[in-house]
Amino acid sequence: MSETTEAPDVLAWTCPLPLRDQPRVVMGHGGGGALSAELVRDVFAPAYGGPALSAMGDSATVELGGARLAFSTDSFVVRPLFFPGGSIGHLAVNGTVNDLAMSGARPAFLSCGFILEEGVETEVVRRVAEALGEAARTAGVEVATGDTKVVEAGHGDGVFINTSGIGLVPPGVDLRPQRVVPGDVVIVSGPIGVHGVAVLSVREGLEFGVEIESDCAALAGLVETMLAVTEDLHVLRDPTRGGLAAALNEIAAASGTGVVVRERAVPVPAPVANACAVLGLDPMYVANEGKLVAFVPRPHADAVLAAMRAHPLGREAAVIGEAVADHPGMVVARTGLGGTRVVDLPLGEQLPRIC
Amino acid sequence: MSETTEAPDVLAWTCPLPLRDQPRVVMGHGGGGALSAELVRDVFAPAYGGPALSAMGDSATVELGGARLAFSTDSFVVRPLFFPGGSIGHLAVNGTVNDLAMSGARPAFLSCGFILEEGVETEVVRRVAEALGEAARTAGVEVATGDTKVVEAGHGDGVFINTSGIGLVPPGVDLRPQRVVPGDVVIVSGPIGVHGVAVLSVREGLEFGVEIESDCAALAGLVETMLAVTEDLHVLRDPTRGGLAAALNEIAAASGTGVVVRERAVPVPAPVANACAVLGLDPMYVANEGKLVAFVPRPHADAVLAAMRAHPLGREAAVIGEAVADHPGMVVARTGLGGTRVVDLPLGEQLPRIC
Repeated sequence: MSETTEAPDVLAWTCPLPLRDQPRVVMGHGGGGALSAELVRDVFAPAYGGPALSAMGDSATVELGGARLAFSTDSFVVRPLFFPGGSIGHLAVNGTVNDLAMSGARPAFLSCGFILEEGVETEVVRRVAEALGEAARTAGVEVATGDTKVVEAGHGDGVFINTSGIGLVPPGVDLRPQRVVPGDVVIVSGPIGVHGVAVLSVREGLEFGVEIESDCAALAGLVETMLAVTEDLHVLRDPTRGGLAAALNEIAAASGTGVVVRERAVPVPAPVANACAVLGLDPMYVANEGKLVAFVPRPHADAVLAAMRAHPLGREAAVIGEAVADHPGMVVARTGLGGTRVVDLPLGEQLPRIC
Repeated sequence: MSETTEAPDVLAWTCPLPLRDQPRVVMGHGGGGALSAELVRDVFAPAYGGPALSAMGDSATVELGGARLAFSTDSFVVRPLFFPGGSIGHLAVNGTVNDLAMSGARPAFLSCGFILEEGVETEVVRRVAEALGEAARTAGVEVATGDTKVVEAGHGDGVFINTSGIGLVPPGVDLRPQRVVPGDVVIVSGPIGVHGVAVLSVREGLEFGVEIESDCAALAGLVETMLAVTEDLHVLRDPTRGGLAAALNEIAAASGTGVVVRERAVPVPAPVANACAVLGLDPMYVANEGKLVAFVPRPHADAVLAAMRAHPLGREAAVIGEAVADHPGMVVARTGLGGTRVVDLPLGEQLPRIC
């Protein structure tokens, strides 16, 4: 089908501004939306892009010494360093573990690079390191190599962490958006928007009646459970920066299929919905760190959903939509009232420094 | 020999200050010397150290899917971003490529994580990315995966880069300080102190009569040449932060042998010596980024040296000393006048943010 082979240029219709001529970096360039994609497309890819980078997945799949490896990197600049349900240390492990898991890989080894700001309390660094260790043990990965740099006070912000990770992709597993076809069932592993609202609540000193805890978690075990049902999943993605909307748009653009989401089927916890209503945010665009979205061939969808619900991190998994041949490259939501709206790729991030 | 199996605690005699009780991070914690080692030993290793991390090499060697991989990470915070002979983009490739090469690995894939400061000129980012691409092509590695974060103006410093890398360690190659034995010949691949003085010259606006260009280069090809002579090299290290003094001290401490250096045999270019004299620096402690130090079994030393001199990056290679059974864990220099002095592990870094 021609709809599935021609990926439209998603930036052509989501970036009306002349961003290319913008002379300075803005916060949105780190937001995981259209501005980030443009920076990669116009600056990084021409300078050093190779075959693996241009696949633009959450992690690269490379061959080395006869092994098929997933390889991924993420820097973490979340503010504040500690928030309900987690910390930058937990994020630094789970973020990279999840990027590897989205390739179907079993995460094995992490690297850990700290950039510390002169004057940060050693005790803070210790608490971050301990959180990182706890998360690594929970996720079953080993921190194999590290590095520490220190920059002068006022030239950093307490603690930045980069983690990179490698994992083994099992034979037969081939997860990438190009495999998505109309008819695929879209499943989300649980309620969305929780991480972003949890971080925001402490950053802005907001209270929403109940404390909202980040969903920060390592998803490799859940992915293994899903792959045990069938190796033939089409694509997985963890909807972090830019939220579920960005993840679905990236898949739609790269696959050249359309995506329809039934708005009422998307699980949004009441406290998150309330907080978003107060703040004028759309939960579809709020970052998660312990959720995944899967495109599953229809014949396997029921079994995969059942397996997810039997796993502690997928108990509230739900079918939220499907891939369609219509409107290739575009994500459309069916509203509760029977209308439709376009869910577009965010330009930047509603909430900067969320991971 | 008992001297070679008991590694003394190098920190016991180089850190007279009660650093452990220091409540805040200081610049020296990122300097690659005793303070850095203490941070790893007292904070990071207890929190998340595993078998690979505790080997404390420039890179970890891990097994994955039947392949023997070197895995390494480095963050780059050099100031200024561009300096004679290189840039943060060149450093970001060569630094990680060299860490991999010091394991004897053939570097294959890099990740690249940018932390950009809001307001930095897009053109600067482009020039850095282009330098990075140029260096990657020269080194023969592919940038396979990347990430970009942006922090608010005043919370970063233009451009920070983390690169991590993976490479394949050939069968039979086993480079680590624990293999050093008394009698090993110490070879340096060329003149030292050049990178540090080159960066300092532009940072401080100093002029030393002649422009000193950084020696920034990828050493994987040179290492391959050396391993072609014999797989039985004992250890390689690139003397970056903390200079040759820190590299030799790390090897002495980890191997439990002593090291004797003939001061007059250490190649120091006249402009570097002059600049160091003016600034009160010791070239032995100044960072390099295109040099390596090798501990080679005596029977192979002449052939390895000849092979190095036949390689463009080893033309000025020189024998500078040897491993000895005396003073285990300690590095001693024989001065030109026939005296001796202890070359100790620096506490921090004479020149912060040199890489």
